[in-house]
Amino acid sequence: EVEEECVNGEDESLEALLTSLTRVNNSRERASQLFQWLINPIPAKAFFRETWEKKPILVQRQNPNYYKGLFSTAEFDRILREEDVQYGVNLDITSYIDGKRETHNPPGRALPFTVWDFYESGCSIRMLNPQAFSSTVWNVLSILQEQFGSMAGANVYLTPPGTQGFAPHYDDIEAFVVQLEGKKHWRVYNPRTDDEVLPVVSSPNFDEADIGDPIMEVVLEAGDLLYFPRGFIHQGDCLPDAHSLHITISSFQKNSWGDLLQRVVPVALEVAMEEDVEFRQGLPLDYLTYMGVQNSDKDDPRRVKFFSRIGNLMKKLSNYAPVDAAVDQKAKDFLHDCLPPALTPEELASSVQGAPIKWECGQVMDAGAQINSQTRVRLLRAGCARLCSDGEAVHLHYTTGNSRVYHKEEPKSFEIKSEHTDAIEFLIHSYPNFVTVESFPCEAKEEKVELAELLFERGIIHTEEPL
Amino acid sequence: EVEEECVNGEDESLEALLTSLTRVNNSRERASQLFQWLINPIPAKAFFRETWEKKPILVQRQNPNYYKGLFSTAEFDRILREEDVQYGVNLDITSYIDGKRETHNPPGRALPFTVWDFYESGCSIRMLNPQAFSSTVWNVLSILQEQFGSMAGANVYLTPPGTQGFAPHYDDIEAFVVQLEGKKHWRVYNPRTDDEVLPVVSSPNFDEADIGDPIMEVVLEAGDLLYFPRGFIHQGDCLPDAHSLHITISSFQKNSWGDLLQRVVPVALEVAMEEDVEFRQGLPLDYLTYMGVQNSDKDDPRRVKFFSRIGNLMKKLSNYAPVDAAVDQKAKDFLHDCLPPALTPEELASSVQGAPIKWECGQVMDAGAQINSQTRVRLLRAGCARLCSDGEAVHLHYTTGNSRVYHKEEPKSFEIKSEHTDAIEFLIHSYPNFVTVESFPCEAKEEKVELAELLFERGIIHTEEPL
Amino acid sequence: EVEEECVNGEDESLEALLTSLTRVNNSRERASQLFQWLINPIPAKAFFRETWEKKPILVQRQNPNYYKGLFSTAEFDRILREEDVQYGVNLDITSYIDGKRETHNPPGRALPFTVWDFYESGCSIRMLNPQAFSSTVWNVLSILQEQFGSMAGANVYLTPPGTQGFAPHYDDIEAFVVQLEGKKHWRVYNPRTDDEVLPVVSSPNFDEADIGDPIMEVVLEAGDLLYFPRGFIHQGDCLPDAHSLHITISSFQKNSWGDLLQRVVPVALEVAMEEDVEFRQGLPLDYLTYMGVQNSDKDDPRRVKFFSRIGNLMKKLSNYAPVDAAVDQKAKDFLHDCLPPALTPEELASSVQGAPIKWECGQVMDAGAQINSQTRVRLLRAGCARLCSDGEAVHLHYTTGNSRVYHKEEPKSFEIKSEHTDAIEFLIHSYPNFVTVESFPCEAKEEKVELAELLFERGIIHTEEPL
Amino acid sequence: EVEEECVNGEDESLEALLTSLTRVNNSRERASQLFQWLINPIPAKAFFRETWEKKPILVQRQNPNYYKGLFSTAEFDRILREEDVQYGVNLDITSYIDGKRETHNPPGRALPFTVWDFYESGCSIRMLNPQAFSSTVWNVLSILQEQFGSMAGANVYLTPPGTQGFAPHYDDIEAFVVQLEGKKHWRVYNPRTDDEVLPVVSSPNFDEADIGDPIMEVVLEAGDLLYFPRGFIHQGDCLPDAHSLHITISSFQKNSWGDLLQRVVPVALEVAMEEDVEFRQGLPLDYLTYMGVQNSDKDDPRRVKFFSRIGNLMKKLSNYAPVDAAVDQKAKDFLHDCLPPALTPEELASSVQGAPIKWECGQVMDAGAQINSQTRVRLLRAGCARLCSDGEAVHLHYTTGNSRVYHKEEPKSFEIKSEHTDAIEFLIHSYPNFVTVESFPCEAKEEKVELAELLFERGIIHTEEPL
Repeated sequence: EVEEECVNGEDESLEALLTSLTRVNNSRERASQLFQWLINPIPAKAFFRETWEKKPILVQRQNPNYYKGLFSTAEFDRILREEDVQYGVNLDITSYIDGKRETHNPPGRALPFTVWDFYESGCSIRMLNPQAFSSTVWNVLSILQEQFGSMAGANVYLTPPGTQGFAPHYDDIEAFVVQLEGKKHWRVYNPRTDDEVLPVVSSPNFDEADIGDPIMEVVLEAGDLLYFPRGFIHQGDCLPDAHSLHITISSFQKNSWGDLLQRVVPVALEVAMEEDVEFRQGLPLDYLTYMGVQNSDKDDPRRVKFFSRIGNLMKKLSNYAPVDAAVDQKAKDFLHDCLPPALTPEELASSVQGAPIKWECGQVMDAGAQINSQTRVRLLRAGCARLCSDGEAVHLHYTTGNSRVYHKEEPKSFEIKSEHTDAIEFLIHSYPNFVTVESFPCEAKEEKVELAELLFERGIIHTEEPL
Repeated sequence: EVEEECVNGEDESLEALLTSLTRVNNSRERASQLFQWLINPIPAKAFFRETWEKKPILVQRQNPNYYKGLFSTAEFDRILREEDVQYGVNLDITSYIDGKRETHNPPGRALPFTVWDFYESGCSIRMLNPQAFSSTVWNVLSILQEQFGSMAGANVYLTPPGTQGFAPHYDDIEAFVVQLEGKKHWRVYNPRTDDEVLPVVSSPNFDEADIGDPIMEVVLEAGDLLYFPRGFIHQGDCLPDAHSLHITISSFQKNSWGDLLQRVVPVALEVAMEEDVEFRQGLPLDYLTYMGVQNSDKDDPRRVKFFSRIGNLMKKLSNYAPVDAAVDQKAKDFLHDCLPPALTPEELASSVQGAPIKWECGQVMDAGAQINSQTRVRLLRAGCARLCSDGEAVHLHYTTGNSRVYHKEEPKSFEIKSEHTDAIEFLIHSYPNFVTVESFPCEAKEEKVELAELLFERGIIHTEEPL
Repeated sequence: EVEEECVNGEDESLEALLTSLTRVNNSRERASQLFQWLINPIPAKAFFRETWEKKPILVQRQNPNYYKGLFSTAEFDRILREEDVQYGVNLDITSYIDGKRETHNPPGRALPFTVWDFYESGCSIRMLNPQAFSSTVWNVLSILQEQFGSMAGANVYLTPPGTQGFAPHYDDIEAFVVQLEGKKHWRVYNPRTDDEVLPVVSSPNFDEADIGDPIMEVVLEAGDLLYFPRGFIHQGDCLPDAHSLHITISSFQKNSWGDLLQRVVPVALEVAMEEDVEFRQGLPLDYLTYMGVQNSDKDDPRRVKFFSRIGNLMKKLSNYAPVDAAVDQKAKDFLHDCLPPALTPEELASSVQGAPIKWECGQVMDAGAQINSQTRVRLLRAGCARLCSDGEAVHLHYTTGNSRVYHKEEPKSFEIKSEHTDAIEFLIHSYPNFVTVESFPCEAKEEKVELAELLFERGIIHTEEPL
Repeated sequence: EVEEECVNGEDESLEALLTSLTRVNNSRERASQLFQWLINPIPAKAFFRETWEKKPILVQRQNPNYYKGLFSTAEFDRILREEDVQYGVNLDITSYIDGKRETHNPPGRALPFTVWDFYESGCSIRMLNPQAFSSTVWNVLSILQEQFGSMAGANVYLTPPGTQGFAPHYDDIEAFVVQLEGKKHWRVYNPRTDDEVLPVVSSPNFDEADIGDPIMEVVLEAGDLLYFPRGFIHQGDCLPDAHSLHITISSFQKNSWGDLLQRVVPVALEVAMEEDVEFRQGLPLDYLTYMGVQNSDKDDPRRVKFFSRIGNLMKKLSNYAPVDAAVDQKAKDFLHDCLPPALTPEELASSVQGAPIKWECGQVMDAGAQINSQTRVRLLRAGCARLCSDGEAVHLHYTTGNSRVYHKEEPKSFEIKSEHTDAIEFLIHSYPNFVTVESFPCEAKEEKVELAELLFERGIIHTEEPL
C-alpha cells in the first residue's frame, strides 16, 4: 500500500520534529507522527501488522544523531547535580558479574560524587523515571501515550565499557530500545514455551543455561533501534572499548483482552445474578456427592448434566457483559497512569497555566481575562479527559492534574451534573475543532460559561486565542 | 409413582423417630427419613419437584403433638436459667406496633427475670441459634444438613397473644415454619417482581402498602407446617387469645448456581490467561476512542468487532472452568458451616469421644484400647469429611472439630500425604460399609494403622465394635 | 498477739468449710477465712508480715485429705470427657528430658483417648484455667480474689511417676503450690540477683548450671502446701513410685507500686502541664549544645543547672498526682480480671439469676416478684461493683457480668447519672448491711426503685428475702 | 551592659547581610547575627531576658526596605506560575466576614488564574511553607533554627485592602510577624487565664465578645516587626487603602520543659522499676477498700500513708531520670524537623554536592578528587549532626539528607561503630575548626579515610579547600 511507504526522512532532529509537531492540530496525529519517527523507516501500519507483539526487529541507521536531544549522559549529570534523585527510588546501581546479579544502592540522594564512583568501578546505572527530570522525555512520552492508548514509560541505562548490568530475563511490556550513545551488544531469545508468549508478569533472572540460543545477536550503535515484544528474553553487554547509554520506551503493561475481561466478567456475573433467575436457582441437593475432586473419576451421568448446566450459564454470561463500563474502568486507570500534557508555548498561552493575570505594581493585573460566551475552546488534548459512568453518577476524569511522578497525585475527577453531560460529550467529540462556549448544548447561558470556567480552571480546555 | 406415597404415619413422636434413626445405617438415609417426617404427608420427591424454590405450601395436621419434643417454651425457660444467653448475640427482643419495628435488647446476659418482663409487656423474643443450647435442635439440624447439602439453621420465635414482632419482609433462605405451641396468623405474598424471585439478599422491612394482597392467609396451629421459598414476603401475628412458639428451619443461603459460578469464573479467567494466548494479546491501540460510555451511541463497525471478540473470549472461558475445584471450595465452606454430628450412644461408644480409656484408682485404665489392622472402621457420617485439592496439596476437611456455635472454631483440615489419598478415597467411597484397617490401599502396614489412628483421634472415623 | 494464734483446726474438709462460709455475712470475711484455711496453721497476719513477697514457706500436714474436694484427677478425666477442652488454649502437654523442655500440643479438642496416651508416654499435663471447668475451683478463686485485691488464678499440673514436665524458672506471681494427689520433689532457689527480686516478668527456662544450689529441697505430699514469692526459681519432679497432681494458686501479677505509678505519672505530668506554667516554659535556647549523650562528659555549670531544674520539676510532679483516679484505673482492670461470684444457694434465691419468675403451663408465672421501696437490698459481694470517675462521667464497673473464661466478656460498666451517685455510694458503704430501697438518698421515689431494678437486673445487688 | 547595645544599623539589606554571613566562620554565630537583624534594634540578650515568652513587643522602623528581599508578592506570583503549589497542602484561601471564618480551597493546583480571582473577591491567601519554594526564606529559616535550638517555620499572608482573613485566636508558637508590603492593623490581647499562658495547643477561633480589650493596637507598616508569645490572642485586618503582605516566623512548638519531661518520666519509672525493689513491691492487700474516687472523702489514716508512699516514690523517680538520653530523643526529632542547610557558594564547592567530578566528553572527569589523610574537614554546620545512643547502639543523626518539605524524608541516621565514636565526637567538638583526617582518633589510617568518606558522601562534613 502506498501510504505505508510515505515515511519521514531520517535526518530530522528531534527538536525540529517536536517544534513542527506543535503545529499539528490534533494530538492523536502528533502521536502518530512521533511514533513514526521512532520506528523509521518501518511504516507504522506494517509494524503493527507484522511485528508488534510478534517478533523482535532491528533498525540500524548509521546515523548517530538520529535520536539526539532525547537524552544524554551530560543531561543525566546535570540532573544528578540539580535534582533530588534518590537511590532506590529514582536510580539503581547494578552489576552482573560471573552470572551473579547484584544491586548496590546506598540510602539517600544520588549525587555525582557517589554515582560516578560506582560507574568507574564497573557498575551500571538505571534511572527509573527520567520523565520526571527531563522535559524532553516527558514531552515525548506524553505524546506517545496517545498512540498506544496505554501508559508509555521509560528507563535509562548507562553501562561502563566491558561490563553488563543485568541478567538475561524477559519483561511484561513491549520494549523499544533506543541507543543514545556508544554501543551495546544485544542477544534476544525466543520465549521458552507457549505459556511465556506475551506473558502477564516479568520473569526472574535466568541462567545462561536455561535460555537456549539467541535468535538475534547484534551491536546497537547510537541512532539504532531494537524492538522486542514482552516475553522475549534479552541481555545486553558493553564492548571493551565503549560505554553505552540507551533509553527503553515501554508500553502495554497489563493491557490485554484478559486484563479487560477481569473487569468485565465479575460484573457480568453480578448482573446475570440480578437479572436472570437461572443464576439464582439452587444447586442440586446432592451435588456434593458426585462433584468435587474426590468424585472426579466417577462416571456419573449427573456429572455430565452438572457440567452442561455450568457451561450453559457461562455462555449466557456474555449477554450480561458490561463492556463499555469495563472499558471505562480501564480508561480511568489509564488516565491516572498518564503523564500530564507537556504544553507547547501556544498551549501555555491559551490555557489556565499561562493566563496573563498576574501581580504587578502592588496589585492584580488581568486586563479582563475572562471566558465569555464568544470564547472558542476545545480539549487541550484528544485524550486528556473522559466521561465515565459508574451506574449512579457521571464523572469526568482527566490527566491535566497528574504529576510527572507516577501516581504522585490521586486520580483526578469530578462529578458532572446531568444537565452538563451533553455539553461535555459535545466538547469531546468536537475535538480537534474549537467551538464557542455559546454553542454548548446547555439550557442557560450562565451554565455554559460556568462549565467552561470549571474546565478551563482544571486545565482540561484551552482557548483558540489567549485570553 | 408408588414410592412417593410410601410415607410415615403422622403419629410418630420425634423422640421415637430419632431413636429409630440411630438404627439406620447410613447418615444420608437418616437425613432423608427425618426430612420426610418434617414435611409429611407430602412425599419428598414431589415436594422437591413441585414446591421447593417455587411456592408456599401448608400442612395442617390437627395433631398438636406432631413436633413435640423439638423445642418448647419450658425448654427455653430452662436455657435462660442455666446457660449464658446474651442479648443481641443469642436473643433479640423485638416489637412491631403501628407499622414500626423496634429492637429492645439491653446489654449483657438474658435472664428469665428480664426476658419474661419484656414478654409480659408485649415484646416478641427471637432466639438466634437454639442448636447451641438445645441438644434436640442440634441433632435434628445436624441430620438435616446432609439432606440439603447446605447449612441448616434455625431461629425460635415466641410471641405474646395479640401482638406481632416483625414487619413484613422476605428472607434469603428456604423457610420451614414449624408451629410448636399456640397459634399464629400468617400472611404470605408473592415476590413483588421477577428480580425478587429467589433473591440473593434479604429484604428490608416493608410497609403494608408496598406488598399487595396475600396469596395465602392461614392460622398455623401446633403441629402444623408452613414452607415458603426465599423471596416470598411474609408476616405473622398472634391472635388475642393465644401465644405462639415456632421454630423456623432454614437452608440454601447463598447456595445457587451463581454462588458457585462466583468461584468458577475468576479462576477460569486466570487459567485461560495462563493457557490461551488469545487472552494475553493486547487490546487494539485505538479502542478507547470508540469504546466506553461516552462512545456507546456511536455506530462504529469497530464496536461490533470489539463486542464480538469479547463475546468469543467469554464463551471460550467455560473450556477453562475448574468446576470440581470450585465445588470443593464451596464444600470447604459448607463443612465449616456444618454443625458437628450429634452422636448416638452407639456412635459415642465406638468413637474417640467415648473411648473407654479413663483415670481410675490413681492411674490410667484402658484395657488395651488400640486400633489395629483388624479393626473395622468407617466414616462417622457420610458427609463428615471431604478430600479437597488446592492444586498444590491435598487436604482432608472435616466437620467433627466444629462447634455448635456457628464458626466459633476455625475451619478444620489437615494435609494428606500423597501415599494416603487412595486410602482416604477408599474410606469415603466405602461408606456406609465398615472396612478393616488392613484393607486400606497403603503400602506399609504401619502406615495403615497410623492413618486410622489419626482419623480416629480427629473423630472422623468410628469402629464397628467399641475398642 | 493472741488473735494470730487463733486458727482453724486441720481436719475441716473443704466442702464443709465452703458451706459454713455461706453463713458468713461479709464476703471480705469469707475471703479471709478461706485464705486462713489455705495456709493453716500459719496465722495470716504473721504470714503477710514475715513471708509474703519475702521467702518460701512449707506446710507439711501429714493429712492427705486436707485439700480434698478442691480438684482431682478423676474430676480432670470427667472434664475431658464432658467439656470442650482445647489443646494449647486450655491444656498443654509438656516434657523436660535431659535439660530439654518441649511442648507437644496437637491441634483441636483434648479428649481422654489422646491425653492419657500422652500421659502414659511420660508427658506432663497442665490445665490452664481449671476455674472455667471446675465449680469448686471457680468458687475458691472468686472468694480469694477479695482477699488479695488482685486477680487470683490457678493452673493444675499432672505429672507421671519418674518424670519432670518443666525446666527450672521463676514466675511473676506469688505462688501457692497445693499438693492434691501423690508426691512431688521440689527444689527452690533464691533470686539470682537483686534485680530479680520481685520481678516484673517471668524468666525464661534456666540451665541447671545457672541457678546455684537450692535453698529448700522437699517432697510435697497430698495435703501439703508450698508458697514462694515471684522471683524464686523452682523445679519439681516426680519420684519413680508416684504420680503427682497439684494446683498452683497465684496472685499479684502486675500489682506493684510501680504498676500503679505507671498510671499515676503520665497523668500527673499532663495535669502539671495544664496547671503549672513552669512546666510550659520553653527550654533554654542552647540546651542542645551542652546536654545529650555527646556532651555527657562535659564539665559545664549549665548542665548542673539543667539537671537541677529537671529534678525540681519532677519533685513537683507528685503535687499533681491523681492517685485516687489512678487507683480507679487499676480497679477497673481488676474488676475486668475478676471471676464472677459463684453464688451460694441463698444468694441465688435472692438475686436476679434465681428470681422465681418462670414459664409454666403456657404462661409467665411470677407471683408479683417485683422490687419495691420496702425491699431490702445490698451489694451481692463487697467488691462486686465500684464507682469510678474518668473526670467527665461517673461509671459503675461490676464483676457480675464477667465470664469464668478470662476476659471472654468485655469490661462491664454503665454510666451513673449524677442524681444516682450518692445512692450508689450509700449502697457500697452500707455493705454488709441490707438497706431498704426507700432509704436510698435519691430525690424521687420512682428513681429509687428504678435504680434498684437496674442494679438487680445486672446482678449487682440481691435482696434480703427472695422476691 | 554595654554589649547589649552593640547592635547593627538598620540600613543593611538582607542580601548584603546574607552575603556577609557567608564569611562568618561559625554557623551558631551566623544564626545569632541573623536573629539580631530580625529584632533590631532590641539587643538579643535583653530580648530573651525581658520579652521572649513574656509579652508582645513592637518595632517600628519607618524603613519599608528593612526586610526587603525576604519575600514579596511578585515572588509569590512567580511561585504560583512555576511551582506545583497545591490548594490545601501549600496554600489556603480564607475569609473572615461578620464574625464568620471560612476556608475556600478548591481541589488541585493553585494557579495565578484562580488564586488572583479569589484575592480580587476579597479572600486572604496563606502560603503554608514558603521555605519549600523561596530559597531566601529557606536560607533564613535554616540559619535561625540554630539560634532557637527548635524548628523555625514560616507562613506568608496576603490580604486584600479592607478585609480580614482570620478570626481572633492564639497559637502554640512564638511568633515574629514581619511586615513585608502594605500595612496591617493589629490588635493583641492578654491570655485569658493563667492556664492559657504559654499554652500547649492553639486555640479555636474566638468571638470578639470573649477576648476582652486589646493590650496593644497598632498599624504595622513594611519594615516593622511585631513579636508575641504563644497564648497571646491576636487579630489583624487591612485598612481600606492598602493590601498587606507579611511573613510570620515561628519557633518553640512543643519545646517546653514539660515536653522534655514527657520523654524523661516514663523511662525514669521504667529504670526505677528495674533498679529499685521498692517500686516492685506489691500494693497493700486492702488498698482498694480505702483508695479510689468512691473513698476519696474518707478520713482514713491508711490513705495518708498511701499518699505518702506514692509521694516518696515519685520524688525518688528523679534519681533514675535519663536526662541526657531524653534530650537525645528530643534532639533526634529536632534534627528530623530541621531544614537542610542552604549552602553558600563556598560550602557548595567544598562539599559532596559540589564535588567537581562530572561527565564530560563521554567519560567521567574527576581529576583525582578524593579525600585523603591530609584533607582538612569539619562539620558543615555546628548542629547538622548529633551522636545519640539508644542504650544499645550509637547512631549519628543528621539534617543534610532532609527535604525542604517538612518530613518528606524519613529521619536520617546511621549506626556508628564503637571504634568510630571518638572520632565523631572529636569532629563535633572541634567545630568550627577544620582538622585533618589523619588527626581522627581512630586506630587504623584506612578507617579514618573510610569514615571521612562516609561523612562527606552524606553531606555532613565539607573540606577546607575544594577537592
